Amino acid sequence: MIQTILLKQRPVGTPALSDFEFVKENVELSLKDGEILLETTYISVDPYLRGRMNDAKSYVAPFELGKPISSGIIAQVAASKNEDFKKGEFVSGMLNWKTQQISDGEGLLKVDKDKAPLSAYLGVLGMTGLTAYLGLTQIGKPKKGETLIVSGAAGAVGSVVGQIGKILGLRVVGIAGTDEKVEMLTSRFGFDEAINYNTTTNMRSAIQEACPDGVDIYFDNVGGPISDAVLFNINKFARMIICGAISVYNNTEMPKSVSVQPFLVKNSALMQGFIVWNYADKFPEAMEHLSSWLTEGKLDYTETIVEGFENTPQAFLDLFEGKNKGKMVVKA
Amino acid sequence: MIQTILLKQRPVGTPALSDFEFVKENVELSLKDGEILLETTYISVDPYLRGRMNDAKSYVAPFELGKPISSGIIAQVAASKNEDFKKGEFVSGMLNWKTQQISDGEGLLKVDKDKAPLSAYLGVLGMTGLTAYLGLTQIGKPKKGETLIVSGAAGAVGSVVGQIGKILGLRVVGIAGTDEKVEMLTSRFGFDEAINYNTTTNMRSAIQEACPDGVDIYFDNVGGPISDAVLFNINKFARMIICGAISVYNNTEMPKSVSVQPFLVKNSALMQGFIVWNYADKFPEAMEHLSSWLTEGKLDYTETIVEGFENTPQAFLDLFEGKNKGKMVVKA
Repeated sequence: MIQTILLKQRPVGTPALSDFEFVKENVELSLKDGEILLETTYISVDPYLRGRMNDAKSYVAPFELGKPISSGIIAQVAASKNEDFKKGEFVSGMLNWKTQQISDGEGLLKVDKDKAPLSAYLGVLGMTGLTAYLGLTQIGKPKKGETLIVSGAAGAVGSVVGQIGKILGLRVVGIAGTDEKVEMLTSRFGFDEAINYNTTTNMRSAIQEACPDGVDIYFDNVGGPISDAVLFNINKFARMIICGAISVYNNTEMPKSVSVQPFLVKNSALMQGFIVWNYADKFPEAMEHLSSWLTEGKLDYTETIVEGFENTPQAFLDLFEGKNKGKMVVKA
Repeated sequence: MIQTILLKQRPVGTPALSDFEFVKENVELSLKDGEILLETTYISVDPYLRGRMNDAKSYVAPFELGKPISSGIIAQVAASKNEDFKKGEFVSGMLNWKTQQISDGEGLLKVDKDKAPLSAYLGVLGMTGLTAYLGLTQIGKPKKGETLIVSGAAGAVGSVVGQIGKILGLRVVGIAGTDEKVEMLTSRFGFDEAINYNTTTNMRSAIQEACPDGVDIYFDNVGGPISDAVLFNINKFARMIICGAISVYNNTEMPKSVSVQPFLVKNSALMQGFIVWNYADKFPEAMEHLSSWLTEGKLDYTETIVEGFENTPQAFLDLFEGKNKGKMVVKA
C-alpha cells in the first residue's frame, strides 16, 4: 500500500493539519526501462515549504493543489531497471511525500550510510549544511576576528552557521527562543554568547552587550523584530544574509518593520536574499569542507527525528512553534 | 569681510533657518608657507548633509555645534604660498561654508573652467556624477536590456543615473514629484517612462505598468513608501542601490516600512547602501567616462543655481521640498 500526502488547500496564515490530505492506494508499481522504485526512508521538513504553499511567485514554483508535497528525501532503491542504481542503495533528492515512488534517477545523489547517518544527508551534509556554509562564505565573506550574529541559531541551519563561524575564527553570537536552546548553543556548539529573545526585554541593548565591537555579519533566519534589533548594532560594511524569515511566513498581512534603508546607507551595508540553489556550482567545494569538518569532529549537529510517515505534516507545523532542535526530519 | 555659516543647533525633524548662525568677521587672513587663500565660488548643498547635522554615528563624522558646515565647494585661489597652486586657479574640495578660507591644498583638485562650467564640477563631473556612475555600475551591475527604475529621478544624482542607464542599454523608468519633472525626464533626459508619485494613487501598479518585465535594478534616492511599491515589482536577482533616503531624513521617529526581508529571500535580491567615498579607487575611471559622455553630448544635466552666499541654508532646506531641478548649487 502506498501512502501520499497532498496539499488539500492553501493555508491562510498558520498552516493546519486540515490543509493536508492523506491518500492510500493499493497499487503495485511497475518499472519501465531506466526507472527505479524508491522507498522513502527520511523526509526533510523545512520552513521554506510554507512559501511554496502560497499561490505566489517565488524562487520555486508553488505546490499544486491536490498534488503531493515534495521536499528533500532519503530513499532506498527497492527495485531498479536503471543501470546507475542498484537495489539496496540509498539516494537523496527532491521527492514527493509518498512512501513509495518511481523515479528515472534524474537529480538523485547517492548517499553512503557508512560515512554518516542517513538523516545527516538531509541536514549537515545536505541542503542545511550547504545553506549554512555557502550563505556565510558567499554573502557573509567572513574575515577572522569579525563578529557574526545568527538568528534562529538553534535551528538546523543556524547551529551549523555558528560552528562554521567559529571554525573560521569569528566571534559568534546566537539568538534562540528557549533557555535550553541558548544553553546548547554555548555549551555544545561553541557559540561565544547566546541570547534568549523570549526572556530579553531589550533585544537592541542585549545584542550590543553581546557584540561589543558591533555586528559585521548577520545570518538571518527569522526576520521581524529580532532583525530590527540587530540593525541598530551593525558596523560599517556589515553583510546581512537573509536566509529565511520564519517569523513572518504565516503573516496574512504584509509585515512592517523598521525601515532598513537608512541603516544600509549609513553603514554602506549589504543585505542579500540567499537561496542555496543559486550556488549549485559551489556544492562540491562546500561538501568537501562539511564532510571533513564532520569527520574531524569539528562540526556537531542535532536533529529532531519524528517517527512515522503520517506525522510529516505535524512535524512541519511544529517548526513554526520552534519545537525542533536542529534539523527536523521524519523517519518514514 | 569674511562670512561664515555655523551649525547653531542640531535640527529636530525638518531643519529650519534658526538651526544656522551667520558670523561676519573683519579680519585679514595671512598665509604661512605652503598655504593658499581660497575665495568661495560655488557651494554644493546635498541631502546627505542632513545626516551630519545629527549627533549620530554615520559614514562621516557629525558636524560640530558652533563650527562651520562643510560641503563640496569650488573656490578660486586668491593668493598662494604653495607652489602647487597659482593665483587665479580654481579648485574643488570639501571646504567650509565661508566666503574666504585658508587651506594647505590637501584634498583639493584643480578644475578647468574652459572644459566645463565650474558648477558642473560639483555635479555631473563631481560627487553627483561619480555617485550616479559608480552606484549604478558597482552595485547595479547592469546588463543590456534590463529594467532600471530610479527614485528622486529629477534630482542631481537621479537624472544622471537615468541617462547612464540609457547609454548602457537599459530600459529606464523614473519617479519624480511634479508633472514638470516627469516631462523633463522623458523629453530631455531620455527616460523611457516617468511616474509622478504625487498624482499616482497606486504606485505599485503604476510601476508594474511602466516595467512590464519587472525591475532588475532600483537606484533608490528616497526610501519610504515609494521604495515599498518598487519592492513588489522586483525580479529575481534584483539589485537595489540604496543611495539616499531623503523621504525619511527628517523623521524624528524611526520610520516603518514593509519588511524587505521576505522580498529579498523570495527573489535572491540584493540591497546595498552606497557611499561614493568607498569607491575612491574607481574615481579616475568614472571621471573618464563622465567627461567623455559630457563632451560627446550624451550626458545632459540641470542645475538650480541660487545666488548669494547668505542663501546657502535656505537652498539646503529647499532640497527637502523638492524645489530643485537637478543639482542644487549656491553661487557665492
